[in-house]
Amino acid sequence: MKQIEESHGPDPVGKHIDRAVLYAALEGILPDDAVLVDDEDLHPYECDGLSAYRQLPVAVTLPRTVEEVQEVMRVCHSLEVPVVARGTGTGLSGGALPLADGVVLSLARLNSILDIDPVGCTASVQPGVRNLAISEAARPYGLYYAPDPSSQIACTIGGNIAENSGGVHCLKYGLTVHNVLQLEVVTVEGERLTLGGGALDSAGYDLMALMIGSEGMLGVVVEVKVKLLPIPERAQVVLAAFDDVEKAGIAVGEIIAAGIIPAGLEMMDGPAIQAAEDFVHAGYPVNAVAMLLCEVDGSNQEVSEHILEVRELLKRCGATEVRTARDDGERLRFWQGRKSAFPAVGRISPDYYCMDGTIPRHRLPEVLKRTSELSKEYGLRVANVFHAGDGNMHPLILYDANNPGELERTEALGGKILELCVAVGGTITGEHGVGIEKINQMCVQFGEEELEQFRAVKRAFDQKQLLNPGKGVPTPRHCSEYRLLRAGDGVEGEVHPGAGEP
Amino acid sequence: MKQIEESHGPDPVGKHIDRAVLYAALEGILPDDAVLVDDEDLHPYECDGLSAYRQLPVAVTLPRTVEEVQEVMRVCHSLEVPVVARGTGTGLSGGALPLADGVVLSLARLNSILDIDPVGCTASVQPGVRNLAISEAARPYGLYYAPDPSSQIACTIGGNIAENSGGVHCLKYGLTVHNVLQLEVVTVEGERLTLGGGALDSAGYDLMALMIGSEGMLGVVVEVKVKLLPIPERAQVVLAAFDDVEKAGIAVGEIIAAGIIPAGLEMMDGPAIQAAEDFVHAGYPVNAVAMLLCEVDGSNQEVSEHILEVRELLKRCGATEVRTARDDGERLRFWQGRKSAFPAVGRISPDYYCMDGTIPRHRLPEVLKRTSELSKEYGLRVANVFHAGDGNMHPLILYDANNPGELERTEALGGKILELCVAVGGTITGEHGVGIEKINQMCVQFGEEELEQFRAVKRAFDQKQLLNPGKGVPTPRHCSEYRLLRAGDGVEGEVHPGAGEP
Repeated sequence: MKQIEESHGPDPVGKHIDRAVLYAALEGILPDDAVLVDDEDLHPYECDGLSAYRQLPVAVTLPRTVEEVQEVMRVCHSLEVPVVARGTGTGLSGGALPLADGVVLSLARLNSILDIDPVGCTASVQPGVRNLAISEAARPYGLYYAPDPSSQIACTIGGNIAENSGGVHCLKYGLTVHNVLQLEVVTVEGERLTLGGGALDSAGYDLMALMIGSEGMLGVVVEVKVKLLPIPERAQVVLAAFDDVEKAGIAVGEIIAAGIIPAGLEMMDGPAIQAAEDFVHAGYPVNAVAMLLCEVDGSNQEVSEHILEVRELLKRCGATEVRTARDDGERLRFWQGRKSAFPAVGRISPDYYCMDGTIPRHRLPEVLKRTSELSKEYGLRVANVFHAGDGNMHPLILYDANNPGELERTEALGGKILELCVAVGGTITGEHGVGIEKINQMCVQFGEEELEQFRAVKRAFDQKQLLNPGKGVPTPRHCSEYRLLRAGDGVEGEVHPGAGEP
Repeated sequence: MKQIEESHGPDPVGKHIDRAVLYAALEGILPDDAVLVDDEDLHPYECDGLSAYRQLPVAVTLPRTVEEVQEVMRVCHSLEVPVVARGTGTGLSGGALPLADGVVLSLARLNSILDIDPVGCTASVQPGVRNLAISEAARPYGLYYAPDPSSQIACTIGGNIAENSGGVHCLKYGLTVHNVLQLEVVTVEGERLTLGGGALDSAGYDLMALMIGSEGMLGVVVEVKVKLLPIPERAQVVLAAFDDVEKAGIAVGEIIAAGIIPAGLEMMDGPAIQAAEDFVHAGYPVNAVAMLLCEVDGSNQEVSEHILEVRELLKRCGATEVRTARDDGERLRFWQGRKSAFPAVGRISPDYYCMDGTIPRHRLPEVLKRTSELSKEYGLRVANVFHAGDGNMHPLILYDANNPGELERTEALGGKILELCVAVGGTITGEHGVGIEKINQMCVQFGEEELEQFRAVKRAFDQKQLLNPGKGVPTPRHCSEYRLLRAGDGVEGEVHPGAGEP
């Protein structure tokens, strides 16, 4: 496994911390079992879902109350020790990767559902509550929490907020930011802020939206009020096979143009279909070049009407097969295949690397074509899974970390794919965040003007750069070095679309 | 008319500007007709929709290009002259009120629709484009722009962004922030930033969301990419009369609990119903104590189904009359009454003051009861118009500015109503912004911790406090003085709900 050899961000501020002083301070404010310092205890925290990168922290703290979180922040702030907040570590971009000179602040023990309000349709929960647990608690009231990342069994709402997570239903129901009403946040100094409110809008700057997706770099979320939605009366899914990716791409556009907003609209390519089918036997068309899953939900009548319309559209767009799930069992199997696509691919390859970029929907065919060319160029197979409705693609690069140089080649290919996304007018992250993974591509996505504004906002929350430093936003030096490197590779100029230019 | 006698914000930085130097600099970068300096030319810019406050600026600039906006910002920044950006001045909270020592930057001439993309369902427009003009341009493609503030004929998209405007359809379609994809912004130094992107999420901090609703205090928006939605196949509205406000309030909750998300769900009380009926003859039930308008949209079948369900619900909740619009003409008349409620009230009173607060839906009856008590206490009539679905209320206080002291009493009553909103867990602004109008109530809504974080974010964009200073966020001194004043009035402690307390 690869150890990080260089810092991606600013020079760590607490490099020469006195461990004994830090341990004593932490043990003075937390119970014994809430401070981990031995290597064997620290190992489970050495990485998140981007497991190619691993690092032991100086300590892990496991506070049980908001007050304890505040105390941890006060201690670390006064000793100038960096802090990396963490949920269950399912993140895919290394946002929760520990720092060698830093403390991990695990929010796993703040895991209570504080209140379900069936009249106001809200839930107030602690950050360590799992995404799916919110919907489970709301179900008796006929309500649920909409965003459903693939990891929803395990991932926490705190982590969802850090990454602004989506899921297969985000086309209709939005990302985390669209489903959160209020946050309680502990600042780097240990103060408590209330951001947002019970209404659509709130007074003052929208610091709640700013906090969502900020990857632990602006504050530590300690309480969340989310919106709950009524469980739809009915959901139904249509599967369509295509012998051509472009036809599938056109069908996506036609469905949306018809005024139907599907609850989910997903695409998989041949390799992803085959891997998923081998794994969960969902009944997928294994010879198809591309497959769409289109789910509609709502009232019984509305769903019937939309399903008919979607079927007609798919046939007109040249689908070779159109199949409506016969019952709820088949519907769930169709989805299980999609939701298991990542582990399914894991079965056919020793390792895989999940990318996360967005593109304008209509650029899909050319992006898939170019990805396929890049795949050959780098000698690495790629399976494609795609939130087609909102243009969020997840190419999975298959590799074997035991082959010398293959991880590096995989990362290089991944970087190329992300830069391709930017070149067609897309972005380098749809829902997984930047973390350490895409810090290079931030220099491609943005001009120095935007990056400098990001840094200024960061300083407005964290003057000493103690909250998850080195993640998310690259330093000017990092970008100038990376741009030189790209220029040396023969990539000309900057790709970012128009930023900073008149 | 009242002149502002005291600054609500930080001390103006450019107090002692040399007008000759400023005029020469502006005339050096803009054509003759783009710099107004004579009092008679400045008068049309002396106020926005909060016309009780008026102030002539030092100059008005009317740039035609983004480059000219950048030049204006560079000149003002180098001379340390404050800048107030402005659309058509329909704002209701004084956000576009000029500063005596500042320049008004009118964006009225940046009024081109740059692109309609019917495939991607987006429109790129300049900030001076009127809200309704976007939908008009999109109509040939079967698309429209959803947020529809009452002033949509006149107000600009730039102003909508400054205030995060909503409208009668925001329950289903969201506020401005939910319908914008990308912003081009000119900074206080005259640099250009691209914020957001074509996708649901974008990398880095969500500065686009931060910019929306920031009331011209963080930057000047010079280009906007908005989402367009397919025009629904059908819309239909049901009108329901009630003899009791509480019953109407319960009906609102029942409709939402039934899983129907109405396109619009509006409530009016007796005085508002009567004023609107006298004005536009919409066919309203003039003897009702409260009236609901519930619109549903979607496919033909879906609408039929939901209308039936809504009618049943309204009857079960005790509506004394339930009427579905017979045709589209009647549907539009029903809405015209609602959308004309403000001018209608203007006909029955020499002046009126439109408030804008939000409350949790279920607290409606008690808030209306307490408002009615306050109305008697202050000897001022109040008509209530209410975006019931999302809890955004617009009490209209009727007064006569020619009666000595009546404006002051009106403002005092308005302040009490907003503080009542905060006390029941709501906010002081739903969609009109803080501006200068609610700067006192910001001290009630927020604790000093949140306010200080707002100020830090402001400094990250505008170190010299040149962008619309004195609006939106109060100074610490302002709040401590206001809190003393309230304490002197016998109001105990702070109302803000839990902020800053453990």
